[in-house]
Amino acid sequence: MAQQHLDPSTDSTAPPLPGGDALAGYLRAQATQFLRALRRHQEAGEAGTALRARPGAGEAGGAEGAGDAALALRRSARRISGTLHTFRPLLDADWADRMRPELAWLSGTLAREHAYAARLERLLEALHRLSGPSVLPAQPQVPAGPHARSAAPGRGALTVGAAKAGALLERQLTLARTRAHSAALGALGSSRFHAVADSVAVLASEVPLAPAAATTDLRPSAATAKERLLDAVAALPLITAGHPYNAEALVSGLSPDPAPHPQDGPWHQVRLLLRLHRYAQEVLRGEDTSVALPAAGQALNRHRDAAEAAAAVAGAARTPRIAPATAYALGVLHADQRHEVEAARFAFQQSWQRQTVGTS
Amino acid sequence: MAQQHLDPSTDSTAPPLPGGDALAGYLRAQATQFLRALRRHQEAGEAGTALRARPGAGEAGGAEGAGDAALALRRSARRISGTLHTFRPLLDADWADRMRPELAWLSGTLAREHAYAARLERLLEALHRLSGPSVLPAQPQVPAGPHARSAAPGRGALTVGAAKAGALLERQLTLARTRAHSAALGALGSSRFHAVADSVAVLASEVPLAPAAATTDLRPSAATAKERLLDAVAALPLITAGHPYNAEALVSGLSPDPAPHPQDGPWHQVRLLLRLHRYAQEVLRGEDTSVALPAAGQALNRHRDAAEAAAAVAGAARTPRIAPATAYALGVLHADQRHEVEAARFAFQQSWQRQTVGTS
Repeated sequence: MAQQHLDPSTDSTAPPLPGGDALAGYLRAQATQFLRALRRHQEAGEAGTALRARPGAGEAGGAEGAGDAALALRRSARRISGTLHTFRPLLDADWADRMRPELAWLSGTLAREHAYAARLERLLEALHRLSGPSVLPAQPQVPAGPHARSAAPGRGALTVGAAKAGALLERQLTLARTRAHSAALGALGSSRFHAVADSVAVLASEVPLAPAAATTDLRPSAATAKERLLDAVAALPLITAGHPYNAEALVSGLSPDPAPHPQDGPWHQVRLLLRLHRYAQEVLRGEDTSVALPAAGQALNRHRDAAEAAAAVAGAARTPRIAPATAYALGVLHADQRHEVEAARFAFQQSWQRQTVGTS
Repeated sequence: MAQQHLDPSTDSTAPPLPGGDALAGYLRAQATQFLRALRRHQEAGEAGTALRARPGAGEAGGAEGAGDAALALRRSARRISGTLHTFRPLLDADWADRMRPELAWLSGTLAREHAYAARLERLLEALHRLSGPSVLPAQPQVPAGPHARSAAPGRGALTVGAAKAGALLERQLTLARTRAHSAALGALGSSRFHAVADSVAVLASEVPLAPAAATTDLRPSAATAKERLLDAVAALPLITAGHPYNAEALVSGLSPDPAPHPQDGPWHQVRLLLRLHRYAQEVLRGEDTSVALPAAGQALNRHRDAAEAAAAVAGAARTPRIAPATAYALGVLHADQRHEVEAARFAFQQSWQRQTVGTS
């Protein structure tokens, strides 16, 4: 079965280096990272429980440790999954095909809690920015009471509408985050997760390579990943994106469709393909590319975050019986985030022109 | 009295050319244009009345002619007024000081009707753009009935919120436009206007120059106008404006202040100073600069239009008892127009860097 996925370039007369050994080494290293992060996550959980027993000592230490460990878990899971995809011809294909959806499920489940927290923070910051720097908390327009806590010191105070919009988003996104937290805890305690962890533990010592992997060149597979990226980038509307203030991202800002931004899809796709390309380069070069995430990748992360934040705002605006002032603030906020989407596309276009994607 | 305003540069040994003659020639020409436009306006009014008597023949012809004539009236009034300001040292100062507020009153009064109409058109176009290109009128999301008329063929259909927002803006801006139309008609029939027209008629044949004007160089006054412009441009935040997507223009988008954009002021001021500079160049060179309005001037017009449109939207959002969907659409629209403001600043910065302001 794996045989038919072998890369035709094995016929090449070039020396098969880097080959299956480099791939196996990379996967073992990522599997080891995964297991280490898992241990840290369990320890952080215990530490959090212990800390909570000491009054005054916050849960923050434990929660932060768990958060960092979850990030590291996701990081390794994404790298293993991406590598199984790109270098599938060199691996036991049945095993790789079974493994990948499980890793995707895990990293997706773990990502959600963090994503909701980050989205809320992004939107509350935007609300403060949009409320202007000049309004002082002592002015009569500023509502006191339940919403006042949204006004951090040194930032603009909020109007009634902005404060209510912030409170609504906080309610909705905190609820979503809490559910995601429970789901992540449930996932980490499930037999499904234990099966994944067991598979990764096996991977840490023994990588199921395809029979011919030892003599197979890695580079054609990496080149395929790069070609997919370049093709996807070529299909992006980069000329439009390179003209600032092209007003494209908000084109469907008032569309009745709850998911009105099919224009975002190709960008999200490039984000994933850029990531696969980066991981493939890590396998080839043995370097960690996450330390200096290229500007293009950062721009696409920002694109994704802003697009999802804008969608969350549009969703909140569909809450029944909200006040007009709240709805108005949500409209301004939605447009603001869609302009962030457009700004991120511009930033991607600029950095893509500047940087040459690693070619080796 | 006029004597003390004489330019010190008259002591210069340079030949005083162009001097008072050029100034008088320019003012006479503008006064003639003014009187011609006034006659056209009166004729268009009569033609409109005649056309209305013929069933089927629209009022459009007459209204359009009157609109064009009003535009030409304003155009000449602005040029005369600006020239009186810039070259005041060469003119009978008492007369110039009496004349300028009257011309400003006239061009302001005549400008308002057109401004409301243009604002409404700008905002309805933006609402259609924001509703996306993909929604077809046949789809069920599109509201039938009273709001359907806002959906022009070939453009995106509107959501309920966008349609209601459009209807609200249409009501408010049409009312404002109707009032402005009546005010303009009233102004054109007033004794105040007849006094202005009489003064301009005198100006068309005899310009009240200061005693020393014939031997006074125009250039120092023009240079002063240019220096004021350059100083005002130097005070603009052009470095920020030159970074696309700086998110500055929306900084007070949710401010409780009904006029929350003091940041717009310096740009509006530069727009006026650029205009004075252009008119001064017309006097010196005898060229009409309005044919090819430089990109910088166009950007500042767009800046003003977008800023006023955004303010109109914020005002509409304060209408009591509007539906949340209407308020949301107004919020999106407001943010969109403030981004237009930001885009206009970027365009100004770009064109200012490219073009050298006429130096002669």
